[in-house]
Amino acid sequence: MSAGKAVIGQSGGPTAVINKSLVGFIKEATTRDFDEILGARHGLAGMLGEDFVDLSNLSESQLYGIAKTPAAALGSVRKKPTDNDIEQLISIFERQNIRSFYYIGGNDSAETAHLVAEGAKSIGYEMKAFHIPKTIDNDLLETDHCPGYGSAARFVAHAFQGDDADNRSLNGIKINVLMGRHAGWLTAASTLGKATEEDGPHLVYVPEKIFNIDTFIKEVKEVYESLGRCVVAVSEGVHNKDGEYFLQTYAGETGSGLAGKKDSHGNIQLSGSGALGDTLTNIISENIDGARVRADTFGYLQRSFLADISEVDAEEAERVGQYAVVVSEKEDTGSIILKRQFSDKYHCDVDLVGLEKVAKNTKAMPKEFLDENKPYVTNDFFEYAMPLTGGIEPKTQIFV
Amino acid sequence: MSAGKAVIGQSGGPTAVINKSLVGFIKEATTRDFDEILGARHGLAGMLGEDFVDLSNLSESQLYGIAKTPAAALGSVRKKPTDNDIEQLISIFERQNIRSFYYIGGNDSAETAHLVAEGAKSIGYEMKAFHIPKTIDNDLLETDHCPGYGSAARFVAHAFQGDDADNRSLNGIKINVLMGRHAGWLTAASTLGKATEEDGPHLVYVPEKIFNIDTFIKEVKEVYESLGRCVVAVSEGVHNKDGEYFLQTYAGETGSGLAGKKDSHGNIQLSGSGALGDTLTNIISENIDGARVRADTFGYLQRSFLADISEVDAEEAERVGQYAVVVSEKEDTGSIILKRQFSDKYHCDVDLVGLEKVAKNTKAMPKEFLDENKPYVTNDFFEYAMPLTGGIEPKTQIFV
Repeated sequence: MSAGKAVIGQSGGPTAVINKSLVGFIKEATTRDFDEILGARHGLAGMLGEDFVDLSNLSESQLYGIAKTPAAALGSVRKKPTDNDIEQLISIFERQNIRSFYYIGGNDSAETAHLVAEGAKSIGYEMKAFHIPKTIDNDLLETDHCPGYGSAARFVAHAFQGDDADNRSLNGIKINVLMGRHAGWLTAASTLGKATEEDGPHLVYVPEKIFNIDTFIKEVKEVYESLGRCVVAVSEGVHNKDGEYFLQTYAGETGSGLAGKKDSHGNIQLSGSGALGDTLTNIISENIDGARVRADTFGYLQRSFLADISEVDAEEAERVGQYAVVVSEKEDTGSIILKRQFSDKYHCDVDLVGLEKVAKNTKAMPKEFLDENKPYVTNDFFEYAMPLTGGIEPKTQIFV
Repeated sequence: MSAGKAVIGQSGGPTAVINKSLVGFIKEATTRDFDEILGARHGLAGMLGEDFVDLSNLSESQLYGIAKTPAAALGSVRKKPTDNDIEQLISIFERQNIRSFYYIGGNDSAETAHLVAEGAKSIGYEMKAFHIPKTIDNDLLETDHCPGYGSAARFVAHAFQGDDADNRSLNGIKINVLMGRHAGWLTAASTLGKATEEDGPHLVYVPEKIFNIDTFIKEVKEVYESLGRCVVAVSEGVHNKDGEYFLQTYAGETGSGLAGKKDSHGNIQLSGSGALGDTLTNIISENIDGARVRADTFGYLQRSFLADISEVDAEEAERVGQYAVVVSEKEDTGSIILKRQFSDKYHCDVDLVGLEKVAKNTKAMPKEFLDENKPYVTNDFFEYAMPLTGGIEPKTQIFV
């Protein structure tokens, strides 16, 4: 039997280095004996519509260009396949003699790869199915961290360094809202460029802890009264004890017209809106007299800024893409993970785990990364996250 | 008579390279015979409170660190001096034997330097007063461009490159709101990283043109129907024919609770809020069925992001600071400007103009930089702005 064709797709929210994984995959795949190497436009949507790009004959300069470009070069999609989709997909794979399926994405993509593997098995069609991890949210199980996170964390750390200097210049209270619906990894990264305790962010609110608005006001007030200023990092996903997002519980009172708006999956829309930051700004303004209060929502820049990529992240992203091809020579299914090696110098090896271990669930920050007594991170988090950013130089040469 | 002391302050919204001007000043000033070189904390506020830092004895490594740090190392202030302030200031200068005043800032700072010069003259106190330009808004008269703009423009161009790739990945309509109350320079910079016509931003709305919401909806719809997606750049200061900001006219209808909120100068608060972007998102969502619509407000990152500085901007910022000292050997007052030399290779010389020419007014984009027929820039703008960014490499290696 020939090796058949290989197909690869990209899914979910893009990252700044997701195309490195694609290029790592292509470079390795072109050394193997696949009949064809197909890229599907917009992930599952392109596979179901047989909208393929031939990836076998790209020049070195094209590959270089793709690897340098953030976001999904093949286009992305947010789609959870139905039973019917999977059935249709397998029949397309059979007809096209596609024998290897690779899907770059988050836990939904691992789930999709799992469903493809199960679907093919159920009708006795021999094929391989692999998940290649990416997400700026860093919330996949099993892997030490997710490709895409290091660059996003680097952007956030650098953004806070500058924004903190800006806040020192003019004082006041600054609230920055970061991506992270279920986990605070990216919000926590806001601390990575701090040189001293007095540098911002001074307070870090993540979804791993219950968010209480009265405590929030009190904590902001305390820092503001002590330093004359306060820089705050808030995850978009902060929620109450019942798991309701803060914006849900405040919709229509002090927030923007967007509060409570739902996206096409029925999820509350948290990104692509300044509603949370503006609502918190209103509340703080009402509670702290005379303070200059501003909010920024870092938005899509966190996952797409191309001019400040982590070299470590970029290299690892390429490596997981490449390894998916290597490992598929001897294994049938699985999710690629990064395993941290405990030596003096930071290094992660690549490895494979079962798809079902990565599918569906998300990984929150562990307790030891979060301070028990205040809204802040621990040194353990610092040591975990810093190498992934490629290194952040502390900067605060300032007289105020 | 001895040279007396020199004092320098920073004022207004910081930039990523305003400290380069400070360092350029310090390096030159320490070679001269000033009795002392004082930095005032928070500009005028620090001068009036005699809150000074000695800038004479900083090490090379401190100067290097300061130059690398965005925002105002001495602290900034937003303060227009009253007659009484000026009187008090001159009496402090007299008592301290401060004979040279340097103020880094925008047109308000040029006005302050002018008032200081006039105030001193009126009582026969011999002193010098100079304005050193900075502003990301690029809206000062006389100078070819303002130090600070090139780095902000570079950040915006790079941010749009990534965000446009992100938009291609998932399609939909993306609205990005840029700083610029009176002039669209920064919003126009969003186009600088485009490789093809199909790259975003597709539409650019600046305060130089009247903003009409119905035309906006129509234009967004046209691009969306033609490309399946649309990336839009909007200046925070877009306004109607009566000069009313869009948010003012829409407050309370579809916008956020922050719409119409005023800052401490009685100006409508445009920055540090996602209100404009969210309001436009609501309106577009209501008018274009089924479209995925998102907004980001780039906020303070535009003026403070330290990891993607324009080298050209950094060098010029340092040079205007240095030149202020050089020129003050033979002149008494003035504002430093950059003058573009018309040769094959981009270069600006430094020069001096009267303070009154720079004070108070702002410079909008000239007609020849804006397309007459559509919300877009011209090639003339491109040629003007590109060198200031240090160069933006076009990037769109993408299959969708």
